[in-house]
Amino acid sequence: MPDKVKAAVMTAPGKIEVQMLPYPKLERGALILKMEMSGICGTDKHAYQGQTLLYGGTEAEQHIVFPAVHGHENIGEIVEIDPRDRFTIEYHGNELKVGDRVTMCPNVICGHCYYCRHIFAYPFCAKNTTIGLSYPSDRPPYVVGGWAEYMFVPPKAWVYKVPDDFPTKLGALVELFVVTATLDRAKEFSRLEARGFGFGDTVVVQGVGPIGLLHVTKARILGAGKIIAVDTSQYKLNLAMEFGADYAINMSETTKEERVARVRELTDGRGADVVVECAGVADALPEGLEMMRRGGTYIETGNFVDTGETTINVHRHLAAKNALVIGNCNHPHSGYYRAMEMMLRYNDRFPFEKLVTHVFKIDDAAEAMEKSLDPESLKVAIVP
Amino acid sequence: MPDKVKAAVMTAPGKIEVQMLPYPKLERGALILKMEMSGICGTDKHAYQGQTLLYGGTEAEQHIVFPAVHGHENIGEIVEIDPRDRFTIEYHGNELKVGDRVTMCPNVICGHCYYCRHIFAYPFCAKNTTIGLSYPSDRPPYVVGGWAEYMFVPPKAWVYKVPDDFPTKLGALVELFVVTATLDRAKEFSRLEARGFGFGDTVVVQGVGPIGLLHVTKARILGAGKIIAVDTSQYKLNLAMEFGADYAINMSETTKEERVARVRELTDGRGADVVVECAGVADALPEGLEMMRRGGTYIETGNFVDTGETTINVHRHLAAKNALVIGNCNHPHSGYYRAMEMMLRYNDRFPFEKLVTHVFKIDDAAEAMEKSLDPESLKVAIVP
Amino acid sequence: MPDKVKAAVMTAPGKIEVQMLPYPKLERGALILKMEMSGICGTDKHAYQGQTLLYGGTEAEQHIVFPAVHGHENIGEIVEIDPRDRFTIEYHGNELKVGDRVTMCPNVICGHCYYCRHIFAYPFCAKNTTIGLSYPSDRPPYVVGGWAEYMFVPPKAWVYKVPDDFPTKLGALVELFVVTATLDRAKEFSRLEARGFGFGDTVVVQGVGPIGLLHVTKARILGAGKIIAVDTSQYKLNLAMEFGADYAINMSETTKEERVARVRELTDGRGADVVVECAGVADALPEGLEMMRRGGTYIETGNFVDTGETTINVHRHLAAKNALVIGNCNHPHSGYYRAMEMMLRYNDRFPFEKLVTHVFKIDDAAEAMEKSLDPESLKVAIVP
Amino acid sequence: MPDKVKAAVMTAPGKIEVQMLPYPKLERGALILKMEMSGICGTDKHAYQGQTLLYGGTEAEQHIVFPAVHGHENIGEIVEIDPRDRFTIEYHGNELKVGDRVTMCPNVICGHCYYCRHIFAYPFCAKNTTIGLSYPSDRPPYVVGGWAEYMFVPPKAWVYKVPDDFPTKLGALVELFVVTATLDRAKEFSRLEARGFGFGDTVVVQGVGPIGLLHVTKARILGAGKIIAVDTSQYKLNLAMEFGADYAINMSETTKEERVARVRELTDGRGADVVVECAGVADALPEGLEMMRRGGTYIETGNFVDTGETTINVHRHLAAKNALVIGNCNHPHSGYYRAMEMMLRYNDRFPFEKLVTHVFKIDDAAEAMEKSLDPESLKVAIVP
Repeated sequence: MPDKVKAAVMTAPGKIEVQMLPYPKLERGALILKMEMSGICGTDKHAYQGQTLLYGGTEAEQHIVFPAVHGHENIGEIVEIDPRDRFTIEYHGNELKVGDRVTMCPNVICGHCYYCRHIFAYPFCAKNTTIGLSYPSDRPPYVVGGWAEYMFVPPKAWVYKVPDDFPTKLGALVELFVVTATLDRAKEFSRLEARGFGFGDTVVVQGVGPIGLLHVTKARILGAGKIIAVDTSQYKLNLAMEFGADYAINMSETTKEERVARVRELTDGRGADVVVECAGVADALPEGLEMMRRGGTYIETGNFVDTGETTINVHRHLAAKNALVIGNCNHPHSGYYRAMEMMLRYNDRFPFEKLVTHVFKIDDAAEAMEKSLDPESLKVAIVP
Repeated sequence: MPDKVKAAVMTAPGKIEVQMLPYPKLERGALILKMEMSGICGTDKHAYQGQTLLYGGTEAEQHIVFPAVHGHENIGEIVEIDPRDRFTIEYHGNELKVGDRVTMCPNVICGHCYYCRHIFAYPFCAKNTTIGLSYPSDRPPYVVGGWAEYMFVPPKAWVYKVPDDFPTKLGALVELFVVTATLDRAKEFSRLEARGFGFGDTVVVQGVGPIGLLHVTKARILGAGKIIAVDTSQYKLNLAMEFGADYAINMSETTKEERVARVRELTDGRGADVVVECAGVADALPEGLEMMRRGGTYIETGNFVDTGETTINVHRHLAAKNALVIGNCNHPHSGYYRAMEMMLRYNDRFPFEKLVTHVFKIDDAAEAMEKSLDPESLKVAIVP
Repeated sequence: MPDKVKAAVMTAPGKIEVQMLPYPKLERGALILKMEMSGICGTDKHAYQGQTLLYGGTEAEQHIVFPAVHGHENIGEIVEIDPRDRFTIEYHGNELKVGDRVTMCPNVICGHCYYCRHIFAYPFCAKNTTIGLSYPSDRPPYVVGGWAEYMFVPPKAWVYKVPDDFPTKLGALVELFVVTATLDRAKEFSRLEARGFGFGDTVVVQGVGPIGLLHVTKARILGAGKIIAVDTSQYKLNLAMEFGADYAINMSETTKEERVARVRELTDGRGADVVVECAGVADALPEGLEMMRRGGTYIETGNFVDTGETTINVHRHLAAKNALVIGNCNHPHSGYYRAMEMMLRYNDRFPFEKLVTHVFKIDDAAEAMEKSLDPESLKVAIVP
Repeated sequence: MPDKVKAAVMTAPGKIEVQMLPYPKLERGALILKMEMSGICGTDKHAYQGQTLLYGGTEAEQHIVFPAVHGHENIGEIVEIDPRDRFTIEYHGNELKVGDRVTMCPNVICGHCYYCRHIFAYPFCAKNTTIGLSYPSDRPPYVVGGWAEYMFVPPKAWVYKVPDDFPTKLGALVELFVVTATLDRAKEFSRLEARGFGFGDTVVVQGVGPIGLLHVTKARILGAGKIIAVDTSQYKLNLAMEFGADYAINMSETTKEERVARVRELTDGRGADVVVECAGVADALPEGLEMMRRGGTYIETGNFVDTGETTINVHRHLAAKNALVIGNCNHPHSGYYRAMEMMLRYNDRFPFEKLVTHVFKIDDAAEAMEKSLDPESLKVAIVP
């Protein structure tokens, strides 16, 4: 193994440097991976823009650390594993060995706190740490993030084997696809087509960046009716149409009132049955609630970091609407294998690889970040 | 029958007059009742204070009309019924005849619209009218509200027989008790004690006027753990303790931060599992969401009329909290008989009659309204 | 209008005669239709074979009557409607007029009984009557079933407009497609992929006649993973593969043990997540429960009439399996318009018209029935 | 510590011997307890009677081993703990030390298999072992069951601290009380009072031994309406009335038809909303399904071991009934602390200690078992 690992380090908001970090030392329960690909997530962009508060107002509240090697949407190959850990690290206790391709859930939990013992499938852990966001790169094990040649996967992380023929780009999308479990939860709340996410329901997705776009696709896979994509970027809206949307509303060309009116026009005047917020903008909430019909379901999943405040009318937006609002900033660790299976099953119909629109070398990580902020990009990824 | 009916008429916000209105003419499907008792509801108080927008932002949006005979929490005795309607008016098609005591759901629906055909148990009807709020008193049938000697129950209203020995005051509380079906919905969303309203969960009730207080009691009946009442009135808080609460937080003596801290202190630092907003004040929302634990459930049911806007942090209050917010401004018409049965079953433990703290004659309706606005009152009722 | 209506009358089990019945007289709330097409349903076949007990053990228990004009999967054109009923008969109160094409829910309910007042979307009515099964053809209105030139749609039936360009054969399938709401209920019970019908779950359908086959398709539309069809007919299994199944198990070539082993082999040894019984044979239950994994969901919807008893091991099949069993012999009247929309949306991928494999004239109704009993047929329909 | 531990060993069905077993050696992750009390559970009785198959038909299928020290409803005091395990054994990672009182979940799981990774709160583990049932007493660590002076709590067991003032007898009942989470699941399935376990619903409990009786109490705590207890023992029925039942039906004095008729008589002819099978007899299933109303919920939790087959009519008992059947032979490990809190909260109203009707010394364990088979006993417990 090399002595040094080339990595893209976010040293402060707005600053990404390429550094040679010490090669990490293996520990019991940990893995060292040779990276294959690592995505740039919305959270990374928020950090780059100075929005760094995660899980605000909860026991898990923390700021994204600087300096850090980001990258939590990872696919890589095992280069080091303690032989005694062969059957304990993989999610189902299957054998892992050098050469295996794996992906991982970015959350690492304590396993004992109230949340770990009650909200099992979701990492609400009060002591949660997150790969790519919580581990400083100026102390061991240095490279706990995927924007690097090698990365250290910490003990207790949930690790999943990736089939040999699984496309690399899909590997960088698995975690995001698991986030769409929001729509599965909305299915739980369905009461035929009256509540929750029912068969044939109209779904609005606010913001069709990568996470919004995968919500469009997931809604289609789960039996949605009309799917309406809303975004400022025509480029993204066009992709949304390819990935399952029926209608696109361009925010650059419309007022809020026009957008709400358009959704109502498409729904016999009622508003959408389900609205999913993937814009990551606080003011999307009141607009989306206006787009939603009475008794509808609103999924708030885009404001993963603190993006500030908004104003709502409690009577109009919640009570009179008999709204069901599902807040979300987590995804279930139990969903990774299922996600991989279903991405392969639907890959003909929805060519997921197209969602990774740009791939950059580690040396060009700063440029990669800039591209990811460009409305004419979707998922931007980093390779060694 | 008399020619004239004495009634308390709300002629404008802030004005209640006693008037002699024409005795109504029976129609097919309608009833005429001799009133026994009629409550003053929060909505009536809002109307009196000029907050008159109902179901804002929905197809059912309407203003409370003036002049009108208010009163939709009614118990009365049938004095007129068309013989051909004997088996069609009562909710289950049982016989109704002169002399029977009845109560009713205030909502009258079209039966055909999207909402009537999908949200069956709840009157989300796009063309909803409400007894005591939608029917002007200056045109026939004049007295569609219970603050009168006689009232006209419109065709298609849901009418329920009241047992002979059912206490009058309980009759004026049945509708309110049905509103606590919010907690039954929260039970639907329970996943053991992890989500929704689970067994032994801590419940905060914001505002313990009549509707809040019945939520306290209902939470206890459904197996809550700690119940925490929050209000500005020590009088109401004392009653809440008697009706099932374990802890009382007086808003007059605390800051918002202290209240939130107190709830967290009572819940191992987490916040309450369930928070129910019954204060009818927009700013209760962000405060209540702060009191709620991660993964908790918030029931918004107090802002039945438009009370204005509030400011929330979408990340902190919804996404990071993984909140489930249930908006509500309706109650299920299917719940009346069950409510009556259960009030009798629990009447020993929770002496519901004490909740009707003041009873006034029609002649004193204006005074009754003033008393109902006094923090040292709970349910105020009007009798002929 | 003619004096007489040609109709296929089931006069006794095993006997279908073509008769000229009196043309019915219109009533308030009723419609008279010129028939376009009417399906032969499993219930009709059961009746023909002498299995006539419906809703056994419930308040709605009744025997299919003889003689009767069967046919409850109907599409026809209005030829008579009372002008005063223009806005009251259609499900949403929209206008109906002569010349409109309509379909209907076969159940006609009282609207007042316990079931009508609590199980709103489903016709559990204690006094339920069923078009095509409950109305004798030897007394007025004679033709309350679709195997006729004209049919009488009774007052209070739920009637739905069919778009002009909606294919006739799809019209005869709408009711069946609504029956697959069983899978939507299983979605309600989903807890990610752990319980109920989760995203990517393996679904076994026992019996892929028309109703089983539509369950295959619906499971696919709702995001199933592997779908496994089980039947005695290779002809039907081939169709199932075309309509969404991944695997077919031919019962003619396998033992019960082999079938169970095959399902387990396809599911890492666990058994299927969801098993849907559409075979209409009592012994399918224990076999299907063996095919189901621990914590799985079993939908029992094929035994719509009394088909006799079976033997189960309560520990093994229910308790130890932690099974969730959903019994069903109803479908929601609220689902018809949604079903039509979604059939059109998915008609390219699943050419529903192919499911109507044979169409016969009324004169050949007896032959039609025989064909419907042939394993090499699917939906057989009757046209004037 | 002593060299030998006195223990009651079930050496074969029907045989319980008092033996002096080697004192176990502490391991990492394990505890050694000085026993305070240990209950005799229905499973122990089944084993004694030769019914030894657990989790039949599932991956966890196993026979209860012989010889073994039974006892999985345990409360004891820590006498040995590895200092390095101070913060890892207790369920929430709180400190444990010598002298602490604890109870435990009897199930010990692998943590990795499909079930461990999907059905988190419930121990469906394919490799499950059970304290008191799976560990032979003729090899180390010998005493993995509570009918002994000391017991060994295996590594990975879920261990809960018991408050100092928690009554001993309640400690022996905690596990059983957690089993009533079946009713919480039925609440999840509630749709107001229409489905699942709704507010004020009528609940039948078949068999009111300890587990049935706690279901009676739990149903009352969760807001049931009428509760009807059914048993062969008038002694148990009397206790059931004290612990929350309204009506008792003695099976010794009635035919099946009379019992079904009685339940219908108490429910306006419909049958009960919820029926809970706690009799542990296969034929209770069809009888209970007859007692259940259409659209009702049946909880099958009594047949924890293989008790043989029964005959049902699939149409009548499942399909026509639109039944929801919840099979259960597990309880959630997350429920222990909540159970203890709620037992204390309700101990005034339901004096749980009375349910431990007989307490025997280890020397008299055989007699204890005989007493536990006597209809005039409820929970029988063993103390050192």
